Amino acid sequence: MDKKETMKGGAVIGRAEQKKRLEQQIRFIVEVDKVKNIFRQTYLADANRKENDAEHSWHLALSAVLLKEHMDAPVDLMKVIVMVLIHDLVEIDAGDTYAYDSEGAKSKRERELKAAERIFGILPKDQGTYFRSLWDEFEDYSTDDAKFAHLLDNFQPLLLNDASDGKSWAEHGVAKSQVCRRNEKIPETSDIIWEKMLEIMDKHVEKGNLSNV
Amino acid sequence: MDKKETMKGGAVIGRAEQKKRLEQQIRFIVEVDKVKNIFRQTYLADANRKENDAEHSWHLALSAVLLKEHMDAPVDLMKVIVMVLIHDLVEIDAGDTYAYDSEGAKSKRERELKAAERIFGILPKDQGTYFRSLWDEFEDYSTDDAKFAHLLDNFQPLLLNDASDGKSWAEHGVAKSQVCRRNEKIPETSDIIWEKMLEIMDKHVEKGNLSNV
Repeated sequence: MDKKETMKGGAVIGRAEQKKRLEQQIRFIVEVDKVKNIFRQTYLADANRKENDAEHSWHLALSAVLLKEHMDAPVDLMKVIVMVLIHDLVEIDAGDTYAYDSEGAKSKRERELKAAERIFGILPKDQGTYFRSLWDEFEDYSTDDAKFAHLLDNFQPLLLNDASDGKSWAEHGVAKSQVCRRNEKIPETSDIIWEKMLEIMDKHVEKGNLSNV
Repeated sequence: MDKKETMKGGAVIGRAEQKKRLEQQIRFIVEVDKVKNIFRQTYLADANRKENDAEHSWHLALSAVLLKEHMDAPVDLMKVIVMVLIHDLVEIDAGDTYAYDSEGAKSKRERELKAAERIFGILPKDQGTYFRSLWDEFEDYSTDDAKFAHLLDNFQPLLLNDASDGKSWAEHGVAKSQVCRRNEKIPETSDIIWEKMLEIMDKHVEKGNLSNV
């Protein structure tokens, strides 16, 4: 064993193993830089350009800290933050599928599973497994933590849509009923945030940015 | 008191107070969207464009989860993540001051203090105070948590500089000694990461992207 030893999860590992882990982590860190070039359909608040996945994920993580208090069930904030930080990494290979693109949705799951294998596989096994389990939990959308993560993932673009005067909704001809269907688990996740979301939607129905069907 | 009551930090608050908090949080979430337009001097790994503060902060938070194991002292991961998520928000008002811009550095502190007052002041008092204390701790750069946050803040652009073939260093005529001075606390924060940073710097001195003074 190498001279320097490090405790990790109870196990003693040598310097050579630690260096190997660091190299894998660096490869991953550089690889995921690519999400900065995956653009979503949502515009920034100033409506000047669309948002990318890295910016979006940063915004969700920050919002998690602030909005946790409004969740109706207790949540594990740390877990939710890591979940939102990594939830869109699969789009590096699979691309962004617009929330209301039903054609794209058909092949989405398959494309994303393959991407998860490759991307999380770059990491040391324990860390790759951890990220993969969080991504699976997010996708499964049934635990309170996953529900909070999805609430963030849906509420943040709604706030940006509101700030940018419904530009993305208007461009895609989105209907209030579609937004409601996509957000059907929000009422059971946070009553007060769902009330706010309805208020914002109704304002944009009024303005003609969201159609009232 | 309103019909619905919520526990928060031991205190019972009414629905009206909870709605008021949510409005302040939303104002903050929309306000900080502006960091997506604050561009840094570092290029993305593919060298095609420069990185903005939101993308950078996302990258640091994710890297914190992965690199914690390499820190020589114990750190509070949750605290470090929130610290890096908010560390650049002051640049919304104060702008980005390039790491090796000694003119800009003179007025930087004053501009950033004023920005911190305004931006964290948008939040409910307890949350604004919490973010402000983390930002102060980051700026003070003396606790183990702040040292880890700074390590991330310096290591990530070094990885991007490496991936983009030293483009930003070469453009600004940066010297290895400047990078070392800026990173003088890294050796005491993580021995193995400092070793890696030196290896990367030496490679780029060899290539002529970093000058050897």
